[in-house]
Amino acid sequence: MSLDTARMVQMANAIRALSMDAVQAANSGHPGMPMGMADVATVLWSEYLKHDPKAPDWADRDRFVLSAGHGSMLIYSLLHLSGYERPTMEDIRNFRQLGSPCAGHPENFLLDGVESTTGPLGQGLAMAVGMAMAERHLNAAFGDDLVDHRTWVIAGDGCLMEGINHEAIGLAGHLKLGRMVVLWDDNNITIDGTTDLSTSEDIKARYEATGWHVVSCDGHDFADIRRALDEAVADDRPSLVACKTVIGKGAPNKQGTSATHGAPLGDDEISAARAMLGWDAKPFEVPEKVLTDWRDTAERGRQSHSEWDVRLANQEQRGEFERRMAGDLPKNFSLDNYIQSLMAEPQKVATRKASEMTLAQINGKLPETIGGSADLTGSNNTKAGGITAFTADDYSGRYVYYGIREFGMAAAMNGMALHGGVIPYGGTFLVFTDYCRAAIRLSALQQQRVVYVMTHDSIGLGEDGPTHQPVEHVQSLRMMPNVLVMRPADAVETAECWEIALRQKARPTVLALSRQGLPQVRNAPDEIGMCSRGAYRLKKNGNAPKVTLVASGSEVHVALDCAEQLEKQGVGAQVVSMVCTELFDEQDDAYRSDILPDNTLKVSIEAGTTFGWERYVGIDGLTIGIDRFGASAPAGDLFAKFGLTAEAIVPQIMNKLND
Amino acid sequence: MSLDTARMVQMANAIRALSMDAVQAANSGHPGMPMGMADVATVLWSEYLKHDPKAPDWADRDRFVLSAGHGSMLIYSLLHLSGYERPTMEDIRNFRQLGSPCAGHPENFLLDGVESTTGPLGQGLAMAVGMAMAERHLNAAFGDDLVDHRTWVIAGDGCLMEGINHEAIGLAGHLKLGRMVVLWDDNNITIDGTTDLSTSEDIKARYEATGWHVVSCDGHDFADIRRALDEAVADDRPSLVACKTVIGKGAPNKQGTSATHGAPLGDDEISAARAMLGWDAKPFEVPEKVLTDWRDTAERGRQSHSEWDVRLANQEQRGEFERRMAGDLPKNFSLDNYIQSLMAEPQKVATRKASEMTLAQINGKLPETIGGSADLTGSNNTKAGGITAFTADDYSGRYVYYGIREFGMAAAMNGMALHGGVIPYGGTFLVFTDYCRAAIRLSALQQQRVVYVMTHDSIGLGEDGPTHQPVEHVQSLRMMPNVLVMRPADAVETAECWEIALRQKARPTVLALSRQGLPQVRNAPDEIGMCSRGAYRLKKNGNAPKVTLVASGSEVHVALDCAEQLEKQGVGAQVVSMVCTELFDEQDDAYRSDILPDNTLKVSIEAGTTFGWERYVGIDGLTIGIDRFGASAPAGDLFAKFGLTAEAIVPQIMNKLND
Repeated sequence: MSLDTARMVQMANAIRALSMDAVQAANSGHPGMPMGMADVATVLWSEYLKHDPKAPDWADRDRFVLSAGHGSMLIYSLLHLSGYERPTMEDIRNFRQLGSPCAGHPENFLLDGVESTTGPLGQGLAMAVGMAMAERHLNAAFGDDLVDHRTWVIAGDGCLMEGINHEAIGLAGHLKLGRMVVLWDDNNITIDGTTDLSTSEDIKARYEATGWHVVSCDGHDFADIRRALDEAVADDRPSLVACKTVIGKGAPNKQGTSATHGAPLGDDEISAARAMLGWDAKPFEVPEKVLTDWRDTAERGRQSHSEWDVRLANQEQRGEFERRMAGDLPKNFSLDNYIQSLMAEPQKVATRKASEMTLAQINGKLPETIGGSADLTGSNNTKAGGITAFTADDYSGRYVYYGIREFGMAAAMNGMALHGGVIPYGGTFLVFTDYCRAAIRLSALQQQRVVYVMTHDSIGLGEDGPTHQPVEHVQSLRMMPNVLVMRPADAVETAECWEIALRQKARPTVLALSRQGLPQVRNAPDEIGMCSRGAYRLKKNGNAPKVTLVASGSEVHVALDCAEQLEKQGVGAQVVSMVCTELFDEQDDAYRSDILPDNTLKVSIEAGTTFGWERYVGIDGLTIGIDRFGASAPAGDLFAKFGLTAEAIVPQIMNKLND
Repeated sequence: MSLDTARMVQMANAIRALSMDAVQAANSGHPGMPMGMADVATVLWSEYLKHDPKAPDWADRDRFVLSAGHGSMLIYSLLHLSGYERPTMEDIRNFRQLGSPCAGHPENFLLDGVESTTGPLGQGLAMAVGMAMAERHLNAAFGDDLVDHRTWVIAGDGCLMEGINHEAIGLAGHLKLGRMVVLWDDNNITIDGTTDLSTSEDIKARYEATGWHVVSCDGHDFADIRRALDEAVADDRPSLVACKTVIGKGAPNKQGTSATHGAPLGDDEISAARAMLGWDAKPFEVPEKVLTDWRDTAERGRQSHSEWDVRLANQEQRGEFERRMAGDLPKNFSLDNYIQSLMAEPQKVATRKASEMTLAQINGKLPETIGGSADLTGSNNTKAGGITAFTADDYSGRYVYYGIREFGMAAAMNGMALHGGVIPYGGTFLVFTDYCRAAIRLSALQQQRVVYVMTHDSIGLGEDGPTHQPVEHVQSLRMMPNVLVMRPADAVETAECWEIALRQKARPTVLALSRQGLPQVRNAPDEIGMCSRGAYRLKKNGNAPKVTLVASGSEVHVALDCAEQLEKQGVGAQVVSMVCTELFDEQDDAYRSDILPDNTLKVSIEAGTTFGWERYVGIDGLTIGIDRFGASAPAGDLFAKFGLTAEAIVPQIMNKLND
């Protein structure tokens, strides 16, 4: 049931007015997109989007992603007009000011109804793919009664031009995510000017080539928009709706030009726009009739929600569904028994293999994990515990063959985590964090539990050479806020790290795992859980040690070798496994200075850049690492070449002590 | 003139034999691709590729890029068989061993004839786009007589699935780079299995949608390959040649499966392959007749080269052409006069604006620069000095509208630099180094002069918020080997940094530039060139200073404010501008300890992560920065919120001094 056109026009104009006024007040922002897409958004939100403004966390709501996040006033307007508690009009008045939830780009942690942080172009759409995957998976697990919703995206030319678009739509097309609809703001304008400055692509043909359904509409004709959305909803492929729009629609002198894209329109143009739109209300005021029309649109969703509540109440799986949507692990979840078994029978395995062994445990205990790899399944050891493929024919599967799409994988995992009900993990080589770094950053910023299984974590990768050997990556990821970077030394630490990662409800984890086999260095059953402190003393020395060796991952056993040789030379040495600097930094002063005592020579050993290790070993310490690109050769030869052996390190320590 | 099929078969089998034997000897590597593409590569190298094995640096040679770099034995075989000085057969025997130029992936710095380092998938093809752009540009500048060659690429499914492929082919199609030909190894296999595990894309349709010409062939039928290549050469669009191949062709039991992709075939299978191929020669031996046929193919290129030499000798522009291809700057190139003018009339400008002012100088003096931006021209201030657009209609232009393709831009710049004759620079926001980080790494690894103009370098970006505010990026790029990261404080430093960047023949530079206006802090005319030492004393204090403030970029003037306030309180303070840590680290001990004296309290101030600054200020120093994500607000409010003002910092210094 649609309102008449005149009322729809006013509803859309409310978006236009709020957008141009807020941008003007902030003296920065992007009025062009919200004004151009106001008509499409009005149809979508008032007639199609399933949501309940009074219950923004309703599990079966449709997900709406504003991939073109710079047009943030569009979603702030929609949320306010639809009746969400926030943003208030005061919030909108303070658009882009310190403390306002109406930030420059929409942030999922600032406002309910903002399903994801968008702004870095292309990633919103790619996260939506993950949301649509999670929806189908949970539908397979819990049925139509509980999970049956759509994922809607508004995307601009920028989102479609970015490389990640190719990965995202390739994955969505392959997986036949028919409940995903992308509304493309086809306005022919980018920041630099018209799109023909930089592209000649037939976007519709490209989408069709990747298995998408494509339909076009006039983005300023309500009936035509409805026709296109109906067609999109009816098709069983993911749909691209090309909405032909005029950027900045309503600004008489500037509409249709890049001048409206990213700058305030100016007072004169805003006055002219008001005249053109027939919008008499003052800035930040919405006429009562228009607001009522908007608020009434919520009724549809409220009713759906009530019906859903009834269905949920009658569901046998209710408890499990609620647990999963809350992101809680089962109360009895623990890997302690498995770790005890490792203590009893130590394993010399690569930590990537140890991760597989751990995953065999985890995937059996946690039905919510969804694993995958960017075409390195056998190398990342990510398929474990008997999970089967997630495919277009079987969405109940829990293993995603992401293809050679690292960035697309990471963004999809963000989308799954944001959707909720699943815990995504995925693998590639650690060096290829460079390909998906922008998505790892969004895992962190959005406070999402995503586990990155990054194998082949050093020159230990060997023959593939410097393009595949991460030397700066571990350290550079440690600098990213709100990410746990963990580099376990053996099978026990790997299991502990996995458990810590799974228990983080508000941050991602990067597991840096070795290609090569590593001896088990922790064998004392009373020491389960040490990794939770970030660093701990693995080898003690009772006699006032002179040297503290601090190492991570595959260099921990090298540090133990060094300690042994030092002690043979009468130099007391202790060994600290620095499995996670972020967790260690969170410990209290007493713990930290006990682990890294001032009265010893501190030596860091890590097969990567030495830059930054001064924080732990001091300026007077020794930092052993690799401050250049690696090389192609068998791993053992490389460790020798780069001096990461006890033979090469111990003499440097002795020299330093004798200085 | 083609050889008969039987001889061509043997030439191709020589590639197959060398590939499977070398991988077997190394006990690691990828035999499948070289064996599958041996027939295509034989036709290409023996009949189409314009090259002179005795003069691998001939400026007008065709460029050949093995984008599927894991199949490195293909190019090592081709180089050896064609008569390049290296690799020798001994080099090939030592495939993937320490010291062999036959590394796991081809490295441009190890072997002539390897035009680019490939291995990180997708980037080879994207670099080839840059090579093809450079070729057309130099053709426009120097004419058909001197520059008239093609760019050939061999790419696999992985290269085509990566997101960067979309950016690269979109750019190439838009620019109508008709002299670029991509030979796609269409073998339906990836590491995880058949391509239908992860993709359902109609690749040919996608390429056609982006303005490419597409032709298919049977990759094991010489005549059909020739037909397709002829068609590709004749078309004025860039061409994709879909070569239907069998991966591991010749290995009777494994061909056509992912088992041949990334592991040795095993002795039994190799014996069986020898039988199937009719190849009797021992490992690492090539029958004289086959070798002669291969070596004879070089004659075509040798002759072209001779003719070209004659044309060059008669060219008026010879000197300029040779200078540019050698990568030398004009002898009289200097920015000193411009810098003197800044000293005379200090400018308060954003460093991005200072960069534009400098570029206006540079682009006037250096015809070899090719600038651009990933759709942020007006923000990055990269179009300066009257340069015009590089378009399909006018390749003489020197400004590229790269579109919203950061990764594609960076890779294309690598390709231009590798091609030679041009110096590429390009801009985006600093935070989007995350989108192109994998290409920045290849600039560094390949030792190429590429200048990244990365603006909006901190929370000073303001209202766009945390997705657009780089807090970890400057520091994380400093960790990457062989990259100069420069963060100038004012217009003078910006000019000096540009000149240093242009004089680096073997490393890239990242310029981190402010959005916001900054006062000019260096006004002493006798101090031109200080940035070349990486850090220098900007404000001296004669009276045994107690405090050394170390800052970069937009925080240098904050440090000067701090110093002033400290001195008012009777605390002597000096200020060091740390414009480039890498250059500072290269200075001798005496200089470094003079600049950062031990007997002062050292304080770092940078609007980014504090992690790593301990290297310069010690454990006992103060590190002032931002160890969290930013926020959306006007820049001034953010600097206050995050405590990056003298008012917030000086009390911390006083406390520390009084500790």
